[in-house]
Amino acid sequence: MRDVAVIGVGMNRWGELWKKSLREIWTEAAVEAVDDAGVDTVEAMYVGCMSGGLFVGQEHLGALLANQLGMGPIPGTRVESACASGGLAFRQAWMDVASGLHDVVLATGVEKMTDVDGGAATDALATAADQEYESYHGVTFPGLYGMMAHAHMHQYGTTRRQMSAVAVKNHHNGSLNPLAQYPQEITVEQVEGSVLVADPLRILDCSPITDGAAAVVLAPLGLARSLTKQPPVRVAASAHATDSIALHERGDLAWLASTEGAARLAYGQAGITPGDVSFCEVHDCFTIAEIMVIEALGLAPRGCGGSGAESGATALGGKVPVNASGGLKSKGHPVGATGIAQVREAVLQLRGQAGDRQVEDAHWGLTQNMGGTGASTVVHVFERV
Amino acid sequence: MRDVAVIGVGMNRWGELWKKSLREIWTEAAVEAVDDAGVDTVEAMYVGCMSGGLFVGQEHLGALLANQLGMGPIPGTRVESACASGGLAFRQAWMDVASGLHDVVLATGVEKMTDVDGGAATDALATAADQEYESYHGVTFPGLYGMMAHAHMHQYGTTRRQMSAVAVKNHHNGSLNPLAQYPQEITVEQVEGSVLVADPLRILDCSPITDGAAAVVLAPLGLARSLTKQPPVRVAASAHATDSIALHERGDLAWLASTEGAARLAYGQAGITPGDVSFCEVHDCFTIAEIMVIEALGLAPRGCGGSGAESGATALGGKVPVNASGGLKSKGHPVGATGIAQVREAVLQLRGQAGDRQVEDAHWGLTQNMGGTGASTVVHVFERV
Repeated sequence: MRDVAVIGVGMNRWGELWKKSLREIWTEAAVEAVDDAGVDTVEAMYVGCMSGGLFVGQEHLGALLANQLGMGPIPGTRVESACASGGLAFRQAWMDVASGLHDVVLATGVEKMTDVDGGAATDALATAADQEYESYHGVTFPGLYGMMAHAHMHQYGTTRRQMSAVAVKNHHNGSLNPLAQYPQEITVEQVEGSVLVADPLRILDCSPITDGAAAVVLAPLGLARSLTKQPPVRVAASAHATDSIALHERGDLAWLASTEGAARLAYGQAGITPGDVSFCEVHDCFTIAEIMVIEALGLAPRGCGGSGAESGATALGGKVPVNASGGLKSKGHPVGATGIAQVREAVLQLRGQAGDRQVEDAHWGLTQNMGGTGASTVVHVFERV
Repeated sequence: MRDVAVIGVGMNRWGELWKKSLREIWTEAAVEAVDDAGVDTVEAMYVGCMSGGLFVGQEHLGALLANQLGMGPIPGTRVESACASGGLAFRQAWMDVASGLHDVVLATGVEKMTDVDGGAATDALATAADQEYESYHGVTFPGLYGMMAHAHMHQYGTTRRQMSAVAVKNHHNGSLNPLAQYPQEITVEQVEGSVLVADPLRILDCSPITDGAAAVVLAPLGLARSLTKQPPVRVAASAHATDSIALHERGDLAWLASTEGAARLAYGQAGITPGDVSFCEVHDCFTIAEIMVIEALGLAPRGCGGSGAESGATALGGKVPVNASGGLKSKGHPVGATGIAQVREAVLQLRGQAGDRQVEDAHWGLTQNMGGTGASTVVHVFERV
């Protein structure tokens, strides 16, 4: 398989974009990525989207968006794995280039979530859980992650304050990201005084409902310097693992086995250990998720993820900055786009183009994108070359 | 890229399977494919499904079904391109094996369409058309294909009788397929006396709403004989092309440009011409579609596809048998499964295991799977080795 690089990135300002359609917000990001790479065309494209059907009544996005971009008849393929759809679209694009099938491939993600009311959005998201054993009985994602949070607090003594510190950190980082949906700083007191959603999770523990898109261009590493003036960033690893979708089938509610598995594969491919990671973008759909993810990635000992944000270890300037972009919490979480936006952030950091939120001396960046309560995880590792 | 073979196939009896859930019908097909190959495990899997969200309230099928099969934590990826979802899932699995990433990969397709009422099923299918320019205004697929049929009749003199002959032929073939949803023979008089759906298309011009699944196992051709006792079938070509999703953006309503484009690529990869094709399985979602597809595949001159079934050229025993399986028309059309079932039929034919519907001396088989009114087409060519 060929070494692959990311040579272009794009993303629009995320938020409640009521005046724009799915195809419009997607096109903004896709055009920016192609322009950033400086290429004239792409040979194939992938679209990560969780549920165009339920959110906007539109499936068949691969063909629709290839045509929207004026790139038809190129292959356009939509990939879905709930909130990990973007990460998986990137992985399929990587596979496409690595295999030698195509040279210049566009990987994108999009979700338009605010064209339906809040209840319908929650119902649409609940299709990422097990319909027969979870969603049908009324449990939604705040409830599922609430149970996971309780398990983690019970087993390891993780505190309310530690979860609050994750939200405060990520909103601080997001305040440095001009494309974030909620770039305002928040305090521990605001988090802990915010409305309860599903005990112990409060509204400021939860990532928002967002419209948004992101896109990146991939090419063989060997061709990157002839295709673009941007510093190429190497894809050092791509890994994907699954777990039971229903929580009741897992041995331990306080452990993300799919993230552990994907991370182990990814470290092996990249030839690094967790200690080598300069920064990471992880799937903080809820504050407890970030805590559990950094443990499963080996960036904190099992049960000790709670101290990461509270101690400053995961802050900008800390030992391993986590979610310098603001994460899902502050940047927003248009579910199909999230995994691609993580890749964009990793690329900007490794190029040294991350502005006020730049991580110093970044060499290895890791992205972790997760579907449901961790039934699927996609991990990528990127290297500055 | 490595040469790839199909080493196992599976499919359940299609129909209105009200007593079985999506995961159950999928598992029947997947287990049969793994058993048919005789392998102990698979390393990755793909699921083609058009809209688990709208039909059964379940997205995230890659993880769900990997776990259902007891194969977690392997990567499970869902791929969607409307009614071409199965063909595209096969293509991604082919790419995975061809790239060298994994050796034994399961490609599957599934749709559970009868858990919603007929109107909701039609609405769900309409998400494969252009929501903003077509579906929103009330046009559904029989209406869109009705317009294409009128254009073809106007431009080329295609007749009502020629479309009827497609339905009669495919139901005859389906009567020889023990897994077909509607295996009964029908007559021209029955087709032409059946209720009008969208002029000129009558109910017996239309493929049905179906529950069903299909699965195949892929492996490197070089390992096939050591992995399985079944005769391996080589994947000689994989091609995917797109077109505008909305009919009004096309130059010619009576021509399937994405099928023409994908076929041209596929013939080039396989190193063959249309005249070499022993048989094909094509996307006869409506009778007019089969007529247009065989033209775009180069199996009939442009405008002359109508005579294929009427003259017997596309019948079993004819020059190039088309839809020996019964096609979507008689076998059924669980949209995400259709492309995989086409591959299964091609493999059975090339193994010489197609029973009463066996094509004599088959060497090259072609499958053509199409999304919407042809906004996406996936073509594969298979060779007996």
